[in-house]
Amino acid sequence: METKLQELKILLQEANDLASAAAVLNWDQETYMPAGGGESRARQLAVLQRLSHEKFTSAAVGNLLDELAPYGESLPYDSDDASLIRVARQQYDRQVKVPSSLVGELGSHTAQTYQVWTEARPANDFARLQSYLEKTLDLSRRVADCFPGYEHIADPLIDFADYGMKASSVRQVFADLREQLVPLVSAITAQEPADNACLLQHFPEEQQWTFGVDVIKQYGYDFKRGRQDKAPHPFTTSFGVGDVRITTRINEHDLGDALFSTLHEAGHAMYEQGVNPALDGTLLAGGTSAGVHESQSRLWENVVGRSRGFWVHFYPKLQALFPEQLKNVPLSTFYRAINRVEPSLIRVDADEVTYNLHVMIRFDLELALLEGTLAVRDLPEAWHARYEADLGVRAPNDQDGVLQDVHWYGGIIGGGFQGYTLGNILSGVFYQKALEAHPAIPNEITEGKFDTLHTWLKTNIYQHGSKFTAPELIERVTGGPLWIEPYIAATCTECRL
Amino acid sequence: METKLQELKILLQEANDLASAAAVLNWDQETYMPAGGGESRARQLAVLQRLSHEKFTSAAVGNLLDELAPYGESLPYDSDDASLIRVARQQYDRQVKVPSSLVGELGSHTAQTYQVWTEARPANDFARLQSYLEKTLDLSRRVADCFPGYEHIADPLIDFADYGMKASSVRQVFADLREQLVPLVSAITAQEPADNACLLQHFPEEQQWTFGVDVIKQYGYDFKRGRQDKAPHPFTTSFGVGDVRITTRINEHDLGDALFSTLHEAGHAMYEQGVNPALDGTLLAGGTSAGVHESQSRLWENVVGRSRGFWVHFYPKLQALFPEQLKNVPLSTFYRAINRVEPSLIRVDADEVTYNLHVMIRFDLELALLEGTLAVRDLPEAWHARYEADLGVRAPNDQDGVLQDVHWYGGIIGGGFQGYTLGNILSGVFYQKALEAHPAIPNEITEGKFDTLHTWLKTNIYQHGSKFTAPELIERVTGGPLWIEPYIAATCTECRL
Repeated sequence: METKLQELKILLQEANDLASAAAVLNWDQETYMPAGGGESRARQLAVLQRLSHEKFTSAAVGNLLDELAPYGESLPYDSDDASLIRVARQQYDRQVKVPSSLVGELGSHTAQTYQVWTEARPANDFARLQSYLEKTLDLSRRVADCFPGYEHIADPLIDFADYGMKASSVRQVFADLREQLVPLVSAITAQEPADNACLLQHFPEEQQWTFGVDVIKQYGYDFKRGRQDKAPHPFTTSFGVGDVRITTRINEHDLGDALFSTLHEAGHAMYEQGVNPALDGTLLAGGTSAGVHESQSRLWENVVGRSRGFWVHFYPKLQALFPEQLKNVPLSTFYRAINRVEPSLIRVDADEVTYNLHVMIRFDLELALLEGTLAVRDLPEAWHARYEADLGVRAPNDQDGVLQDVHWYGGIIGGGFQGYTLGNILSGVFYQKALEAHPAIPNEITEGKFDTLHTWLKTNIYQHGSKFTAPELIERVTGGPLWIEPYIAATCTECRL
Repeated sequence: METKLQELKILLQEANDLASAAAVLNWDQETYMPAGGGESRARQLAVLQRLSHEKFTSAAVGNLLDELAPYGESLPYDSDDASLIRVARQQYDRQVKVPSSLVGELGSHTAQTYQVWTEARPANDFARLQSYLEKTLDLSRRVADCFPGYEHIADPLIDFADYGMKASSVRQVFADLREQLVPLVSAITAQEPADNACLLQHFPEEQQWTFGVDVIKQYGYDFKRGRQDKAPHPFTTSFGVGDVRITTRINEHDLGDALFSTLHEAGHAMYEQGVNPALDGTLLAGGTSAGVHESQSRLWENVVGRSRGFWVHFYPKLQALFPEQLKNVPLSTFYRAINRVEPSLIRVDADEVTYNLHVMIRFDLELALLEGTLAVRDLPEAWHARYEADLGVRAPNDQDGVLQDVHWYGGIIGGGFQGYTLGNILSGVFYQKALEAHPAIPNEITEGKFDTLHTWLKTNIYQHGSKFTAPELIERVTGGPLWIEPYIAATCTECRL
């Protein structure tokens, strides 16, 4: 059995290495690739994704998994080998249903679409993307249709990202959350919003970059095993436990943009960097679900990075970097500014309270697209209508409307958004558990120390990679299922009301 | 036959796309990859190189080539399809002899070795590399031994890079050249060398970068289909006709370093960018041999970039960028400084006359390593001894001795150096042919215009990619074989004596 297991590991590693190579090509496309490279890049990505999929879903892997099943069950459930066999089985059963040709077609099409989006968004030209998006929708439906018997056509796509969830269960969580959030938003927006003028001065790029890098180094993001670059859309990508990269974009007229996106991506990246090195190169060497991943980005961005204690330590350093802009701004004003709640147009810049309403809009729209009750050509107006209804704001154009997020233009439609809100909820849950174990954490944060928190997260979450499904992990960490109260409590701090 | 040809093209394109993906990963490794990424990168590269090789040498490709041979011969020799079938056959017959496992092992080993070299070179630590290099030598011999019947063990490796050449023919060319160069070097070094103090002032990085970029834009290097980054060792890499990148390194205390390396790499890159787009994604979409490739880098670096006419146009612009450093330096002094001939330690910084002596040392040493007449542990001292004998200089350490060039530390040993000198010789030949067709070229250069020369090169060399072997191309362009006289004549301009 040891030999069989070794054979399996070699086959899986090859599939994984091809997927990592594709991730490098993606990273390059979003950071440094010249415009002329788009056509050949789409082809290269398609080949890599198709081959990775072919290798992973080969009969040889299937046979080895069959043969190894009893052996896997004989090992302790949480051992690396049992987990590898178990998780490979889950993913194999899922991926074997999607033909490699469809994976290749999707890879090629989405790489091309991404390239068009990078030009169409600044040009505010949704029309140029319409036919691309129609094809993406068609391909997304074809992927979903590889899993007949679903309750809702989005279910298989949601399950890819957040194993164990489906449209109806996400809708239930969202309804519960909405019930609590809508009165909160109303109560907040009835008041004068906090003054955020201090953030909207001119902050030169270089110092912004330096400050963000200094903070995430202190968080524990390891630059020997990662780097930060600029990209139109901030993201995290991993090519192995030793190479986990983040990107950011800098707005010289809004200090919050780059800073909180850097803290956000560092959270994702610390999760990936914290995986047990023994799992490197295996399919267990990554975060376990979109929601759990997002819990870490939101934890380091919001729960820590927007807390008063954090700024007790860092605000003097920020003032020293931007003396002209901030010397007359007291900490309390700055703190209220970065926690200002106000319905707005852009998801990634949204405050913690309204953020989930942005997510719900996207989630509902992508379900409608998949169901066929909304046509792609009607999407821009549907977007505006929902923003008016839910948030009371309307973008002056599509650039800040339906074109703002990369997701639909660089991947499938469906399953890409619910993880953000699940992650918000989980960030509250996990942080509460960390505090129960180590009540000194908030004090340490006021001293710029993050070791206790980081170590707790590594021990309880990061090191496991994707050995456990999200429901299993939540159960292990909390002893129960997902619950929204800690998150709601955290978003109701006095400052925000 | 059209269907068969289409099948062949799809298979070859897949192999080519995998090789291009590997090139992206290599580029990333040499430019941006954090140190922690080395281990997984080696694995990823090995998989890509092995799969590309497997795809290319598959029985399916062999059968299609057999079936298509008569069809290929029925088409005009220089048509794209005939050339594709013919060149694929040549390369197939060659590559099929090297097992994919060896290709994978070589890819993985050289990626690891490269990573060690990036640390060992600054630390002047050859000992750390010795066992790696011994394995490289072993692997290189194993590659050569896939081609039994050679006259010299280096012959197959030389033939990979410069088709049609072998150790004995290179030695003959080198002997002819040496006969002319040695007295030239003696005559020059008997005189006081030109004063190059003007180059050795402090020149801030940013302006150096700007100037280099401006020149190569004017040359015709297309930044929409390429980019320049910094790397420890300058190189050019292509991922397709639309994405051809260069790297440079900047020395703030020697103006010549980055400038001439930028012009050099731009020459390589313009060759790759100039390939007929119809060949993109095929195995014809690249330069035809190391020697012809080097002819283009040396042509734009030296024949053009060190000519008086070039500096008549550009020197005032350089002075404007560096007024303090250059305002009191007349053009004639600057021109003599950049053409100063002096035996020195570093190949890439060497003048045009002594450069070939550096190449010959490496060529002879790698032949001795392959023959087994020189052991890796004796290589550092053999290097020093040859530098003393041939150039009268001895490096104070290995960092500027045997560790200076990346070649042996990122690829095989053998076949990597002769192309530089063949390229020097060819740069003289091609430039002479361009002048015969367009005598106005030197005048245009004094006006900063390079269109006529660039267009002649595109028409006669670049567009063909590797449709023709180097000997075929030389015959097409010049009507005869390689000859060294134009190169010797060019290196004997009055300024240099």
